[in-house]
Amino acid sequence: MKQDIFDIMASRLDDENSEVIILDQTSLPNEVRYKRHKTKESVWEAINHLEVRGAPAIGIAAAYGLYIAIKGSCAKNYEEFYKEFSEAKDFLSTARPTAVNLFWALDRMEKCLKENCDKSLEEIKRLLRNEAEKIRFEDEEVCRQIGENALSLLNPGMGLLTHCNAGTIATAKYGTALAPIYIGHEKGYAFKVFADETRPLLQGARLTAWELQEAGVDVTLICDNMASIVMKNGWIDAVLVGCDRVAANGDSANKIGTSGVAILAKEYGIPFYVHAPLSTIDMKTLTGKDIEIELRRGEEIYESWYCEPMAPKGIKTYNPAFDVTDAQYITAIITEKGIAYPPYEDSLKKMFE
Amino acid sequence: MKQDIFDIMASRLDDENSEVIILDQTSLPNEVRYKRHKTKESVWEAINHLEVRGAPAIGIAAAYGLYIAIKGSCAKNYEEFYKEFSEAKDFLSTARPTAVNLFWALDRMEKCLKENCDKSLEEIKRLLRNEAEKIRFEDEEVCRQIGENALSLLNPGMGLLTHCNAGTIATAKYGTALAPIYIGHEKGYAFKVFADETRPLLQGARLTAWELQEAGVDVTLICDNMASIVMKNGWIDAVLVGCDRVAANGDSANKIGTSGVAILAKEYGIPFYVHAPLSTIDMKTLTGKDIEIELRRGEEIYESWYCEPMAPKGIKTYNPAFDVTDAQYITAIITEKGIAYPPYEDSLKKMFE
Repeated sequence: MKQDIFDIMASRLDDENSEVIILDQTSLPNEVRYKRHKTKESVWEAINHLEVRGAPAIGIAAAYGLYIAIKGSCAKNYEEFYKEFSEAKDFLSTARPTAVNLFWALDRMEKCLKENCDKSLEEIKRLLRNEAEKIRFEDEEVCRQIGENALSLLNPGMGLLTHCNAGTIATAKYGTALAPIYIGHEKGYAFKVFADETRPLLQGARLTAWELQEAGVDVTLICDNMASIVMKNGWIDAVLVGCDRVAANGDSANKIGTSGVAILAKEYGIPFYVHAPLSTIDMKTLTGKDIEIELRRGEEIYESWYCEPMAPKGIKTYNPAFDVTDAQYITAIITEKGIAYPPYEDSLKKMFE
Repeated sequence: MKQDIFDIMASRLDDENSEVIILDQTSLPNEVRYKRHKTKESVWEAINHLEVRGAPAIGIAAAYGLYIAIKGSCAKNYEEFYKEFSEAKDFLSTARPTAVNLFWALDRMEKCLKENCDKSLEEIKRLLRNEAEKIRFEDEEVCRQIGENALSLLNPGMGLLTHCNAGTIATAKYGTALAPIYIGHEKGYAFKVFADETRPLLQGARLTAWELQEAGVDVTLICDNMASIVMKNGWIDAVLVGCDRVAANGDSANKIGTSGVAILAKEYGIPFYVHAPLSTIDMKTLTGKDIEIELRRGEEIYESWYCEPMAPKGIKTYNPAFDVTDAQYITAIITEKGIAYPPYEDSLKKMFE
């Protein structure tokens, strides 16, 4: 497979067939396979099973799913329609608990609905479709802007470490943490990128290493537990990660393991940058303690991807999908509106002014 | 399989058949399979392929391998015999570069040979067999003593984190880092143990989780990148690890990822204990910088254990088997002769007085 990595989209709408087309990321890097989803249940499963993942991409897929869910509504009036809409929205919002973009995108759809309550139902449906599409189009521009802002912190030839996948397929395009890498690559920055494989589901090995390799970026795959030695070797000048939710004080939830990488970066004196669309910043969540961490089934640790069990039968596991990186370990939070520095209580608030 | 975990031995000598019987740890936890090795080449491969691993167990297997290699010697005099012995010793010492016990055990065999140069070759062979057996028997006692010493630092009910496998099958018996857990378990200490799976070869998932589960110890398997969150959750009271080589200043080489765990422990204020038989302390190596870190093939990261490649074809990798934990992160180094505290330059030296 050789194609422009940016031609691959995490999800898109086929309005004619009333389907959401979602890239099945669980098949990567071995196969680029799209699945067509006709119902909210099907979209819910795609999100829940991580066929589509990455905070911005989840938001986009959920908005499409919500539109598809109510597009065929036979409601006779706004109240009936609103009830159907709310049920679909509530259902989709249970797909995953940690990334705030899911709720943000669904809330945005609801706001659009409410603002147009005086319109005909057909017109409302059309506006909801446009809103879902806008969420995707806007994310592309948001990511590009995050990339430009982040690039201002980097120099050509730098060694960069990233954890999980905050790349083009985690967003509408460009990614968040990978956006400066792509934009820098186009400008000939010659970064040397190290990708943590990111257990248990290997988003770093399967997705980040694949994306960057396809784009011709110099990328080296390491196991998560090798982050310390590559930092000690002096190979890392900055750590770039995405996030699933940033609290008002800067505490940032991201893929499990991120907090450990941040602590290592601090110890080795390496800047640690969180890349966050404003849609990921949740000013209603005061600190990281208030962020619900999704717990997933233990089989992901000892069964998924393997031919035979690689741990004894019946072993007890703990499998949190995310962790919270305390604000004290974060050098800067990079948004589409600019770069926030500590104290984040103030700098994040200003982003919304 | 239900058997006493201590009945399982990493390696033992079948002198009658001139064979070293080695537990193939790459088959665990799915199968307890022993392989019989008749030549030094075969033992070399068992060590190199990690069928036997763990610093003390490698030393024992190498000593047996050296004995088997020269047992059938037709040398006519001591000089001829010594030449054959040296060739076999040099060959076996190339099996793996980082763990010092390999060299220590082979040197001990050579010392035995030299001290008995005036004896008949048959008598020398008998003494070499006894020396190899002594290395194993002594290690059992060494590990038990390390366990007793380490247990003095722990309290019932503690949460303990361990990385890789420093258990009974990494030694003659009891293990090093797991020795206090086994001895405490017998005394009803009710530890709650968390085992890092230890990528890429999953010694934590396949070996530590299996050993402890078989022994009835409360063990929970986590991915390496979850160490930070379990510490933050307040579940870990101490980190216990083994080591492959301790330098004179306390810098300790151990399975890749150990240095990261140590830095996290320091950040969370959790004591970090290295369990080291004196045979693992290499006073000739002044600091960790002088320890050669074994680099292994990248396929271990993206191919081993999997049904299909879990990273894109041709991906560049970095796959160090070990890393060095700087002495500054080590709360204490626990040997069979007692507990060494910083400054290690002094406390380790005293261990050998």
